[in-house]
Amino acid sequence: MRYSNDAPAVITLTSGPVNAYPEVLLGLARPVLYDYDPAFQSFYERVVDKAQTAMRLTNKPVIQQGEPVLGLEAAAASLITPADTVLNLASGVYGKGFGYWALRYTSNVLEIEVPYNEAITPEAVAEMLKAHPEISVVCACHHDTPSGTINPIAEIGALVAAHGAYLIVDAVSSFGGMDVHPEACHADIFVTGPNKCLGGAPGLTLLGVSERAWEKMKANQAAPRASMLSIVDWENAWSRDKPFPFTPSVAEINGLDAALDLYLSEGPEAVWARHDLTARAARAGLKAMGLSLWAASEEIASPTTTAVRTPEGIDEGALRQAARERYGVVFSAGRGETAGKLTRIGHMGPTAQPIYAIAALTAYAGAVNALGGAVKTGEGIDAAMAVIDAAA
Amino acid sequence: MRYSNDAPAVITLTSGPVNAYPEVLLGLARPVLYDYDPAFQSFYERVVDKAQTAMRLTNKPVIQQGEPVLGLEAAAASLITPADTVLNLASGVYGKGFGYWALRYTSNVLEIEVPYNEAITPEAVAEMLKAHPEISVVCACHHDTPSGTINPIAEIGALVAAHGAYLIVDAVSSFGGMDVHPEACHADIFVTGPNKCLGGAPGLTLLGVSERAWEKMKANQAAPRASMLSIVDWENAWSRDKPFPFTPSVAEINGLDAALDLYLSEGPEAVWARHDLTARAARAGLKAMGLSLWAASEEIASPTTTAVRTPEGIDEGALRQAARERYGVVFSAGRGETAGKLTRIGHMGPTAQPIYAIAALTAYAGAVNALGGAVKTGEGIDAAMAVIDAAA
Amino acid sequence: MRYSNDAPAVITLTSGPVNAYPEVLLGLARPVLYDYDPAFQSFYERVVDKAQTAMRLTNKPVIQQGEPVLGLEAAAASLITPADTVLNLASGVYGKGFGYWALRYTSNVLEIEVPYNEAITPEAVAEMLKAHPEISVVCACHHDTPSGTINPIAEIGALVAAHGAYLIVDAVSSFGGMDVHPEACHADIFVTGPNKCLGGAPGLTLLGVSERAWEKMKANQAAPRASMLSIVDWENAWSRDKPFPFTPSVAEINGLDAALDLYLSEGPEAVWARHDLTARAARAGLKAMGLSLWAASEEIASPTTTAVRTPEGIDEGALRQAARERYGVVFSAGRGETAGKLTRIGHMGPTAQPIYAIAALTAYAGAVNALGGAVKTGEGIDAAMAVIDAAA
Amino acid sequence: MRYSNDAPAVITLTSGPVNAYPEVLLGLARPVLYDYDPAFQSFYERVVDKAQTAMRLTNKPVIQQGEPVLGLEAAAASLITPADTVLNLASGVYGKGFGYWALRYTSNVLEIEVPYNEAITPEAVAEMLKAHPEISVVCACHHDTPSGTINPIAEIGALVAAHGAYLIVDAVSSFGGMDVHPEACHADIFVTGPNKCLGGAPGLTLLGVSERAWEKMKANQAAPRASMLSIVDWENAWSRDKPFPFTPSVAEINGLDAALDLYLSEGPEAVWARHDLTARAARAGLKAMGLSLWAASEEIASPTTTAVRTPEGIDEGALRQAARERYGVVFSAGRGETAGKLTRIGHMGPTAQPIYAIAALTAYAGAVNALGGAVKTGEGIDAAMAVIDAAA
Repeated sequence: MRYSNDAPAVITLTSGPVNAYPEVLLGLARPVLYDYDPAFQSFYERVVDKAQTAMRLTNKPVIQQGEPVLGLEAAAASLITPADTVLNLASGVYGKGFGYWALRYTSNVLEIEVPYNEAITPEAVAEMLKAHPEISVVCACHHDTPSGTINPIAEIGALVAAHGAYLIVDAVSSFGGMDVHPEACHADIFVTGPNKCLGGAPGLTLLGVSERAWEKMKANQAAPRASMLSIVDWENAWSRDKPFPFTPSVAEINGLDAALDLYLSEGPEAVWARHDLTARAARAGLKAMGLSLWAASEEIASPTTTAVRTPEGIDEGALRQAARERYGVVFSAGRGETAGKLTRIGHMGPTAQPIYAIAALTAYAGAVNALGGAVKTGEGIDAAMAVIDAAA
Repeated sequence: MRYSNDAPAVITLTSGPVNAYPEVLLGLARPVLYDYDPAFQSFYERVVDKAQTAMRLTNKPVIQQGEPVLGLEAAAASLITPADTVLNLASGVYGKGFGYWALRYTSNVLEIEVPYNEAITPEAVAEMLKAHPEISVVCACHHDTPSGTINPIAEIGALVAAHGAYLIVDAVSSFGGMDVHPEACHADIFVTGPNKCLGGAPGLTLLGVSERAWEKMKANQAAPRASMLSIVDWENAWSRDKPFPFTPSVAEINGLDAALDLYLSEGPEAVWARHDLTARAARAGLKAMGLSLWAASEEIASPTTTAVRTPEGIDEGALRQAARERYGVVFSAGRGETAGKLTRIGHMGPTAQPIYAIAALTAYAGAVNALGGAVKTGEGIDAAMAVIDAAA
Repeated sequence: MRYSNDAPAVITLTSGPVNAYPEVLLGLARPVLYDYDPAFQSFYERVVDKAQTAMRLTNKPVIQQGEPVLGLEAAAASLITPADTVLNLASGVYGKGFGYWALRYTSNVLEIEVPYNEAITPEAVAEMLKAHPEISVVCACHHDTPSGTINPIAEIGALVAAHGAYLIVDAVSSFGGMDVHPEACHADIFVTGPNKCLGGAPGLTLLGVSERAWEKMKANQAAPRASMLSIVDWENAWSRDKPFPFTPSVAEINGLDAALDLYLSEGPEAVWARHDLTARAARAGLKAMGLSLWAASEEIASPTTTAVRTPEGIDEGALRQAARERYGVVFSAGRGETAGKLTRIGHMGPTAQPIYAIAALTAYAGAVNALGGAVKTGEGIDAAMAVIDAAA
Repeated sequence: MRYSNDAPAVITLTSGPVNAYPEVLLGLARPVLYDYDPAFQSFYERVVDKAQTAMRLTNKPVIQQGEPVLGLEAAAASLITPADTVLNLASGVYGKGFGYWALRYTSNVLEIEVPYNEAITPEAVAEMLKAHPEISVVCACHHDTPSGTINPIAEIGALVAAHGAYLIVDAVSSFGGMDVHPEACHADIFVTGPNKCLGGAPGLTLLGVSERAWEKMKANQAAPRASMLSIVDWENAWSRDKPFPFTPSVAEINGLDAALDLYLSEGPEAVWARHDLTARAARAGLKAMGLSLWAASEEIASPTTTAVRTPEGIDEGALRQAARERYGVVFSAGRGETAGKLTRIGHMGPTAQPIYAIAALTAYAGAVNALGGAVKTGEGIDAAMAVIDAAA
């Protein structure tokens, strides 16, 4: 049998959007309240409070009404001014891309770029900061999803803080799946969203904003206002007593509420542990099958996405298509420079469960073999199971 | 008994967000597919096709991933250039507001403004166009929701088309509740969304874009690109074979699909008829109770929102609070200049049903009386029922 | 406009099934767990605990896997033996009907029957018990729904308890809408369900069973066992450690859980108060319009259903059809002997809100008038509002 | 990591209840309509029509308002009279159990019993029918779920038809997952339900009833009437113009509607094919791992449930517990005589997908190994993949 492309897949193991938890799907279906109904306004405040708890913030986070690309663009537009010198850290397609946004707002953009299967080292950052005392804003992508690699954001953040610069962190696809939080990494603007490791729906951004970032943005006359891109307009929108700048996406807020409840009730540490274990099982299995991880070293491989280097002679698109049509399993492709070179297996939210690593390994190996490869599937499963069982 | 502000209201009769149809709520809860899964890409194309049918367009509409304020801002940012002379039509708070967006992109902004309980006349537009042949873009709000008034957009559109200018129409709160469509009113950009008369959730914009507007926007180097505000990036996103500029709000698309199915299967004319009848019943009831419509004449009163002038000596906020806490019925306030002067009863999507006009009239009258008024509720109900029964 | 019979109604104001609360509908959509999964077994126990709290029981209630007609039949089959003498109390169609079930299990059935718009008096019961010391089981319908009348079950229960007989109480359509509980009325088997005043879905029975009723049933060799009709098989099924006799209706249990949460969190007294107020408003309105209640006196009129005597010369079926097609409002008909003579307006769960009394009165009056009546709708609304406002 | 018994499992691979398809879960959440609303009555008729199509019947099936144990008991109670001689076919716990129901209604019960890992042969039935021309009713369980074995019902049915006896078929856990239909196997009463291979919720029975069975039941004065157990009361309940004997389980009907839509739109043959392939992959994997199928031969192994004989020295309950706590995978135990001797892996509805055979094999093998076994997991996966790939 073959699965039609028009039929739903059986298991979606992408690096986002991932399917939402059942509780979140039902959260999305709650009645749509009028945004100025006091019952909605107090509900919204409670959701912000839960996000604050999840993000381990000492002040209120901002919920922006669009997927995290909005938060990233808005952060650049709001925080960066022509007077700033920006250091952009590029270890992948997303980190690289942020530099272009930075360039819209200042012409002074420095960059550290490493091959897209490596991570930025704290040493390189320290050196650059020393060489360029004028750096006032640093931009870092914590998990560069198209590469499945993690940058050492805590160390980088400490250096940036010591330097006195502002730090913008893209943690869209890592927050909720591992131990990364705005204040712990000294982020001034920390961008994430509900649709990756929180197992929510795409359509919202969660922003952690430091007090000094609020001051800088509010002082920036060019920061977007009366605009979809505005952050500053939303400073007090969390309060049940304050108006919304425009209508929030009520259904998405309902869904976010459910996602945060799940995250907090399962316990963040437990959630991270199953992301980590699933990824470790996947990596062990791939290696045992003779396949290569994209990441230059396992230390920088993400616990929320495993990027596999496409074997020689195999077409990556054909590989994903084979996995879908033979086994009903959907993976993510690379993006930009990594497109065609790797396949991404997501471990996010509801799919961060070791048994899904088994399904992923089997479908991936089966697809390779269907295209003429000679991967030993069973050996991979045995290796993955050894990892899973070791944790039991 | 009194309803707590923290408890959900019994009936929400606002001018948006309104509660969604049950089918839409369940649509929102469908599985979240990966945006690059071919099953999602073909689904997205089918949703765009349904939107095209509903909007009676000869080309594909654009779905933008944010509530219609995004579409309005994006339209100004994409279509208007410093070389343009804009005529802004302001018969209310929303129409007035659009002028400020226009001013961001050109310094040449003319305006026709009328009192916010009146409508723009075609004569005034014709005169202005004659006096200013340089006008190249006209901006009109079809239904200025904070006033509950309708501008004669078909007539205005014909004049603008004859003049050769581009026309931007805000039909956010009228489309789906009455006979207004992009091409019929010669709109070059027609902005609406699922959350008003379609009975969907807030979080998306529907844009009808004429071919010449596409040309003008694509030629405009300053039009947003690689941005949440971009329209041009989404030109081909409807196609199952083209990538999305960024992740669409999958759950909202699921909900929109359900909303469009309902609208098309009930039949647009039938949907409009119940909006119209509900509004007429509401107006008849209000007048019979000795209350005043906000609209200067009933001809310009919206079929999707009935704005009632707040009686002398009554606090409008207290009035809505009384309706909520005594009867569990929520209305909308005015906005900006109309705030405190009127209350708005929405007739949109699932609430565009005559029996809800009865509930609205009773709760409104009861609230007035609770605050010391002496409105004859029963006489209002009898008058409203006469309208409803005449249509049976 | 006219509503098609194939289209959903706008507002369903029946005496059950009523639409469920939104939270219950979403509860029904939770994942279906395997009944022997320990997660389901412990969940089931928690649901039983909530039902115990709601029913104010000192022991565990039984959830039976079918709508309450199952519980009523099963109670007769399990408790009544040929050695019993049953006193059946018939003040309506449902009470009368129970006598036929009793007759299947014993030939000794006595009955007190009153006209179906009256209630059984404690005096009549006392007299019968005195005259027939052999009476061992008494069967009473608390709220005879087809009549919308309430029997004084607390007083009757006290008499039966003093006599030493067992008492079976049908509280299907009253429990959850007023102050009636198994132990307070000395019921040995108390039958209710989630689909009336709890605002749940039809498909389950809730049974309160006294310890002595358990003993009697277990001693009854003819009591159903290994049968859908069995009660005794389910004695310990509440326990997470005990098997289910057969597969429970998992989705219904999920929905019941949500319904009980709502009931307990709103507070039973608050729930009863809005049932009572809605019914009082409805009755005041009907009387002011010159219409007649079916109940012989207002004291025995149910707070969960208002039965209106059909005006002379009006066809009751045509009346309900007119209410549905003109206003989208659905009422219940009578049943059996009361069919054609009365219409029932339900006030149950989500519809036990005073504003729905307004909608009901308007639609009912409009339907009467559409068929040639001359009811003064507005006067009814004013009278109903006076009741509602007096409670504010 | 270990999954708590109180937390939901990751994947439920039982032989029912299985989780429902997402569309069915949302179907369950549709508004609860009043059962006498004409919109519900016509909807109910359409659902019966869909069931008729799915069951390939020439007359209307009956929907009973309880899980299939109701239909089985009701079939015995309605069809079998003291004048009947029943031949009960027992190849497992469920088939054996039916004989006890038969004995309630006639003392003339013959039985063919085979070991519970074998199937009834047509030869044995032919011989018995020849020896006992008085046999008037034959009872057969098509798929004896606690054994995971299939009886040759088409052949048996042809013999019974030639003999002239009535045939009651329990196809609860096979219908919808393989090619079995009432008329094709000459069943007079064919009992199934939505919760197994249709991927629906437990709580309803679907009955196919032949015209001559209707006649026999209606002529049987002892057949249940005015009872939850009645079949005859429901003869005409499918019609939009006929009343329901009691309130149907509206939410379950809503869910059934969605389940039938899925089944018919995917195409029965395609649905059966994925059940078959999933089971074949599971069996191949188990054998390659050195484990034993419960079924005496693969020819009689069910395509909807794979029963694995518990390895020597392993505690079956501990095995399932290990699979759940280590991998989050839930299997079914045996029942009655098969309890403790086998574990059942379900392939039903949404889990009848080959990739779930992989998950099942891995979790099963891992659990065995956790308890001291030495199963070669990887070899099992390779064998299962060979089956899956051969079908691609």
